[in-house]
Amino acid sequence: MVDVTLKDLARELKISTSTVSRALKDAHDISPKTKQQVLELARKWNYQPNPHASSLRRQKSKTIAVIIPEIANNFFSLAINGIQSVAQQKGYHILIYLTHENFEQEKSIIQYLQSGRVDGILMSLSSETRDTAHLSEFKQKGLPIVFFDRVCDNYDTLKVTTDDYFSSFEATEHLIEQGCQKIAYLGLSNNLSIGINRMNGYLDALRKNNLAIKPARIIQGSKDHQKNYALIFELLKSNHRPDGIFAAVEKMAITCYQVFDELQLSIPSEIKLLSFSNLPTAPFLHPSLTTITQPAFAIGKEAASRLLSALQKNNQPLDNETIVLKSTLIKRESTKW
Amino acid sequence: MVDVTLKDLARELKISTSTVSRALKDAHDISPKTKQQVLELARKWNYQPNPHASSLRRQKSKTIAVIIPEIANNFFSLAINGIQSVAQQKGYHILIYLTHENFEQEKSIIQYLQSGRVDGILMSLSSETRDTAHLSEFKQKGLPIVFFDRVCDNYDTLKVTTDDYFSSFEATEHLIEQGCQKIAYLGLSNNLSIGINRMNGYLDALRKNNLAIKPARIIQGSKDHQKNYALIFELLKSNHRPDGIFAAVEKMAITCYQVFDELQLSIPSEIKLLSFSNLPTAPFLHPSLTTITQPAFAIGKEAASRLLSALQKNNQPLDNETIVLKSTLIKRESTKW
Repeated sequence: MVDVTLKDLARELKISTSTVSRALKDAHDISPKTKQQVLELARKWNYQPNPHASSLRRQKSKTIAVIIPEIANNFFSLAINGIQSVAQQKGYHILIYLTHENFEQEKSIIQYLQSGRVDGILMSLSSETRDTAHLSEFKQKGLPIVFFDRVCDNYDTLKVTTDDYFSSFEATEHLIEQGCQKIAYLGLSNNLSIGINRMNGYLDALRKNNLAIKPARIIQGSKDHQKNYALIFELLKSNHRPDGIFAAVEKMAITCYQVFDELQLSIPSEIKLLSFSNLPTAPFLHPSLTTITQPAFAIGKEAASRLLSALQKNNQPLDNETIVLKSTLIKRESTKW
Repeated sequence: MVDVTLKDLARELKISTSTVSRALKDAHDISPKTKQQVLELARKWNYQPNPHASSLRRQKSKTIAVIIPEIANNFFSLAINGIQSVAQQKGYHILIYLTHENFEQEKSIIQYLQSGRVDGILMSLSSETRDTAHLSEFKQKGLPIVFFDRVCDNYDTLKVTTDDYFSSFEATEHLIEQGCQKIAYLGLSNNLSIGINRMNGYLDALRKNNLAIKPARIIQGSKDHQKNYALIFELLKSNHRPDGIFAAVEKMAITCYQVFDELQLSIPSEIKLLSFSNLPTAPFLHPSLTTITQPAFAIGKEAASRLLSALQKNNQPLDNETIVLKSTLIKRESTKW
């Protein structure tokens, strides 16, 4: 069976295609009787307007893109649930694009979207992104972007984030209060402001407490799990072995459990661990993991609400503003004295 | 800045829009000199072809939809990574749609996609789906669907799944070997064949070992976490309290850890637990969780490879075949004697 077209309907009803088209749009110059006949046949034959053709006319796709670095990540899956909750309510479709932390992939998606497939974008940068020229081009086209979590500093638009600096400061001070003197930091990128803010929170907490800063205890990981494992393993076997670890990335904390297991290091007596994390199993880990938990659902919801409101107000420009939603320190066994 | 059009290029170069269009398509009747002039200006002005217009012409979007019930699920996030690995290599974009286990949402997505936004679909059914009429319509349009994991039985097409019946049989027998006599089953749906196969594996293992089947020990959960919690809680407080639980769904296993914690039940001495799961933290739970682990990445990769091969062979029809990739029983502390 092939698609039913306006022409097919017109031929069957012996009227013009333009009358069919106007009847389907409920135009005032078409009689109620004709409208009814057209609608009945369209329903019976399961007529579907061609979305490309109608997007061309309307220049609106009622679709927003969500660009994220990865999907196997509890923060992003919760944030997407928050985004979806708003999109569904407002009748928008969401399309999810993954960059896999890859800058070239991110550029290619941005290039693809520039030509009008979507009405707007919600985006969290890839950790490999240094240069943001690909985004500036986007801006010239007038398509709105809202950043969330991993935001782009030098792009004037709405951003939704958590209090990265303060949370990291608080996390590091908690480890210090629990007796740690040699605290390591595990991050993912020092290009993005999120990474810089989290590391600064850690560094300032060490400074405030007169603890030495050792570059050897600062690890910038990557998306390569084996490499991250090796980096943490080497740190723990070295002279700079920490007595506490602050992981700014959930994935790195799981890798820590693996390395501790391999080295038969016991948490929290030999080493303490604290991580940014939205892991649903954090309370049931052995031992349970002390976390900085981001309001992931709320972050996604806020970012989507702001974007869709602007779109619905005839593409009103987005404020250049950063909305900060607070994270929560949840103390558990992994940082017990 | 507004979008550059073919007309703008034509005006600037003082040639017709049709010549510009043909030059951009490298048509043989346009001189190399003109082609070069057009390409240079198009690059300089960052000309982007309108994707809706060019999709209309080509009737190919180089895009596939992935429809899944939820995203906060390790099986699906790994499967998507498998899908993406193939799509990226073959130059396809993937769009992810979430049904949130909701039948109406699934129908609406299917309706939306019927009108030609994508070239094909990879799909895992929502647990609420009983009626599959919305899919039959799709079939008539000739758009290919490959099902993975939660497949649709009465739809002739390619399906990629795991050995659900055998894995569940093996899981239940493992609990019996570890001394369990009163084993509960926690599922999500008895509409889909995946649910039926998993439950049958459980039932047959009980029968083979002459253990009584108690309907009270069979729980069909939903997407409502609070309800699932209450159902498991009540079962454990009842006269039918099990000495072993087989969770056919990862989420239900995490809920079990929560309920056991609340009731201060100790695993594995008071109750044993085994679950279908791709949880990266399964080895580090307290106690570590015995799992049936699906080859999620391979399932996604296989489904995508088959779909894209068919698309690239000029939309060759898909075989009506079910490819079964084996899962693995990984024994850990939660089922220790």
